[in-house]
Amino acid sequence: MTKPAKSEQTRAAIVESAMRLFLENGYDRTTMRAIAADAGVSVGNAYYYFPSKEHLIQGFYDRMVTAHRAACAEILASDGDFTTKLTGVLTAWLEVSSPYHAFASQFFKNAADPDSPLSPFSTESGNARDGGIAIHRKLVDGVKVDSQLREDLPELLWLFQMGVVLFWVHDKSENQRNTDVLVRRSTPMIGKLLQLSRVPGLRSVTREAAQLFRDIGLGTLGKSRGPAGHSNG
Amino acid sequence: MTKPAKSEQTRAAIVESAMRLFLENGYDRTTMRAIAADAGVSVGNAYYYFPSKEHLIQGFYDRMVTAHRAACAEILASDGDFTTKLTGVLTAWLEVSSPYHAFASQFFKNAADPDSPLSPFSTESGNARDGGIAIHRKLVDGVKVDSQLREDLPELLWLFQMGVVLFWVHDKSENQRNTDVLVRRSTPMIGKLLQLSRVPGLRSVTREAAQLFRDIGLGTLGKSRGPAGHSNG
Repeated sequence: MTKPAKSEQTRAAIVESAMRLFLENGYDRTTMRAIAADAGVSVGNAYYYFPSKEHLIQGFYDRMVTAHRAACAEILASDGDFTTKLTGVLTAWLEVSSPYHAFASQFFKNAADPDSPLSPFSTESGNARDGGIAIHRKLVDGVKVDSQLREDLPELLWLFQMGVVLFWVHDKSENQRNTDVLVRRSTPMIGKLLQLSRVPGLRSVTREAAQLFRDIGLGTLGKSRGPAGHSNG
Repeated sequence: MTKPAKSEQTRAAIVESAMRLFLENGYDRTTMRAIAADAGVSVGNAYYYFPSKEHLIQGFYDRMVTAHRAACAEILASDGDFTTKLTGVLTAWLEVSSPYHAFASQFFKNAADPDSPLSPFSTESGNARDGGIAIHRKLVDGVKVDSQLREDLPELLWLFQMGVVLFWVHDKSENQRNTDVLVRRSTPMIGKLLQLSRVPGLRSVTREAAQLFRDIGLGTLGKSRGPAGHSNG
């Protein structure tokens, strides 16, 4: 591990101040001036790193992906089976994200706006999206699965993770316990479906699903394109 | 067909004016005063029918469900198979909603806020949600499917419809062509999965899915409860 450069430390300090203030005062009511003051940097310096509050959120997304990757490095490097690894990847995401649940619920309306650069499907979120899909690509490495399904599987699993995130944002159970239940019990089903994807009767269904996924523009998610339809609309 | 009462006509006129003004000027910037003026009623009268703009959106949701129910009455009464009916129900929804796509994209961030009464999962949206689920309950009538799955199937299909809506809102292809492709090609897969749900190997997966669906609080959606977790959080 090399020590992060000074500029990386400054970036991280600004993002941390921003997240704390967003959480305390709301995203809309927090100014760049307040964030800079809290982080102990000049307003000019804050704007140098993050030209807008939206860039700050992208910085937050990037940090979350880095934290997620670190949190699941061990399980991904292990010789566990697919289901164990997928459970590990998604519970690692829940652990890393747990401190931000209140913020995420309050902030979600911004990310859910299809025209917002803060949408997980936007061009601007391409970096964080690629990072997230790369985790699932590593997970899929060496899994026995119908070959036609393999290519799209990282994007499909990332989309499933987005579904989990959608549920988590709405989850009002204590400590988001219901999302934990959802993850731990849905992953064995996905593992089983992948095994069944090599059985002739079901294989046609999973192949059709993968082809459909490409045809409606979701197959390009991992290529930092914009939302579905941009590529062939 | 009986003629709608005068009060129903007034309600409808107010909702129509509201939708047009929301579309033209945005939800946030449209006032009740402007809506009343456009509908040719007094401000007091408009407030009598709709105490707030949020109530207007609930009125819009209710109207959409009524229009959707009318648009798929014929296909639901026919002797088509499950896949044909599900395709009919979802394409009817797309047809009815198509004029509002621009509004829905712009408005979506409000409905996506988990704490908003405008969320499809909120207590306040219970009326529209029950109406939507009732359409799927009619659809499921007489379908051959694993008995343990049958009970939850209307809610599961409605959730699938919400997934289609989520995709549709993000769909930037011409006339939302990609959503049409998604519906026409995913419904035969669902039909096939339901057939397979009676085969021992897959049945355990669909039963686990249905049980999980109940355990994380989604089984109460059709009972006008609040979002997942409220009932057992």
